[in-house]
Amino acid sequence: MPAADHQDDNSFDTLARDAVYRAIFTRRDVRSHFVDAPLDDAVLARLLSAAHHAPSVGYMQPWNFILIRDRERRRQVRDLFLAARAEETEIMEADRRELYRSLKLEGIVESALNLCITCDRTRSKGSPLGRSHNPEMDLFSTVCAVQNFWLAARAEGVGVGWVSILDMAALKRLLAIPDHVVPIAYLCVGRVSDFARRPDLEAKGWGRRLPLSSLIMSENYGGAGEEQLRHLSDETSGRLTDAGMQQPRGGL
Amino acid sequence: MPAADHQDDNSFDTLARDAVYRAIFTRRDVRSHFVDAPLDDAVLARLLSAAHHAPSVGYMQPWNFILIRDRERRRQVRDLFLAARAEETEIMEADRRELYRSLKLEGIVESALNLCITCDRTRSKGSPLGRSHNPEMDLFSTVCAVQNFWLAARAEGVGVGWVSILDMAALKRLLAIPDHVVPIAYLCVGRVSDFARRPDLEAKGWGRRLPLSSLIMSENYGGAGEEQLRHLSDETSGRLTDAGMQQPRGGL
Repeated sequence: MPAADHQDDNSFDTLARDAVYRAIFTRRDVRSHFVDAPLDDAVLARLLSAAHHAPSVGYMQPWNFILIRDRERRRQVRDLFLAARAEETEIMEADRRELYRSLKLEGIVESALNLCITCDRTRSKGSPLGRSHNPEMDLFSTVCAVQNFWLAARAEGVGVGWVSILDMAALKRLLAIPDHVVPIAYLCVGRVSDFARRPDLEAKGWGRRLPLSSLIMSENYGGAGEEQLRHLSDETSGRLTDAGMQQPRGGL
Repeated sequence: MPAADHQDDNSFDTLARDAVYRAIFTRRDVRSHFVDAPLDDAVLARLLSAAHHAPSVGYMQPWNFILIRDRERRRQVRDLFLAARAEETEIMEADRRELYRSLKLEGIVESALNLCITCDRTRSKGSPLGRSHNPEMDLFSTVCAVQNFWLAARAEGVGVGWVSILDMAALKRLLAIPDHVVPIAYLCVGRVSDFARRPDLEAKGWGRRLPLSSLIMSENYGGAGEEQLRHLSDETSGRLTDAGMQQPRGGL
């Protein structure tokens, strides 16, 4: 195969590799550290390019990016959030309701802008490679685009929060999203004063990170084995989490 | 708020930022460049740690990681793929069938190992924060874990391919996955000789990358506007794609 088909230099040096891990380990779901500063179009263009280079089933690229800057429209979205949160409060276990109510779960109005990433389910037309058995693969491709955006944003010092407490049918009406298009993620995006050291829901006592070793299975569901890997996974997960907090100096 | 709650140094320098973009732009869905080499448990532990640090709705961490190393089991999975591909061929538009048949779409047996990343839908128990309106959010969280794994793998020089042409009910039986657990991604993972310069489906003429500018909308679905951002997006997307092929030297 001619060399032109291959990447010239496929290896990452240690610093470059560690930078990727650092973005992964220090990314946060940001709700409360947005600052009142605009986001340059040049930065936003890089973030959207990162999203657009996500994997997609059958190279379908089913995503669209709706930017919402208008404050009045954002207040309407915030009203949808508040209504949905009130409904969700009712179904929480009684002893978690007070903690639930105390959590800040969105930065819709105070972030620089909102971004709705959607999935057009018709884009592969007559040849849905990879979707005849698993038609939801286009939704999953769009989620990969969200995660690319999120990690690139972390590297740019831009905070991103995903608001999932929303009535999506109401959001579709508000944003004039047609039937064949699914809103996958409603994101709050903007410059932040800080990135939290730990996920908010961990810091506030809503949950704890599970031991990675408990999530690894061998050969089939629940399968025992992989002892060395399990041991290394817990050790690595803790070490990388801490190391990710600083600028890497090589050899995470 | 005490400093201990914040990351000590939240900024990425230019080289670190560019390394993150490079992982994003040079990640490939790998099917055909796997080499016959084992994958160290230390590397695999880092990749699984990256997956485990994905965002998850309500801090649910719904994922499990089933490692499949056994060749006989992998041959059985490959048989599932072959059957599903034969079925999918039939529904392709007639003029695309020959091209479809010529595509190599998996590396199940020749990769170092397979990894099935699953979603346990019951893990948030009685308090499904963020899931009462959008119960599919746990599936999406698991996809974020897949994308973290994939990007970390690229930085480690490890190839990953996502096999979506599978009958998932049959896969669940084969891997003894219980009813309340959904297999999200079946991945082929291993050292590779090369990463392709372009996505396989683009190189083989199955599809083309859409212009990013055509995917950006303003304020609502189909909304015009954001001219400067659209212009910068196409310019940036092309430049980053090319720059990502080399070791970055700062200032992408």
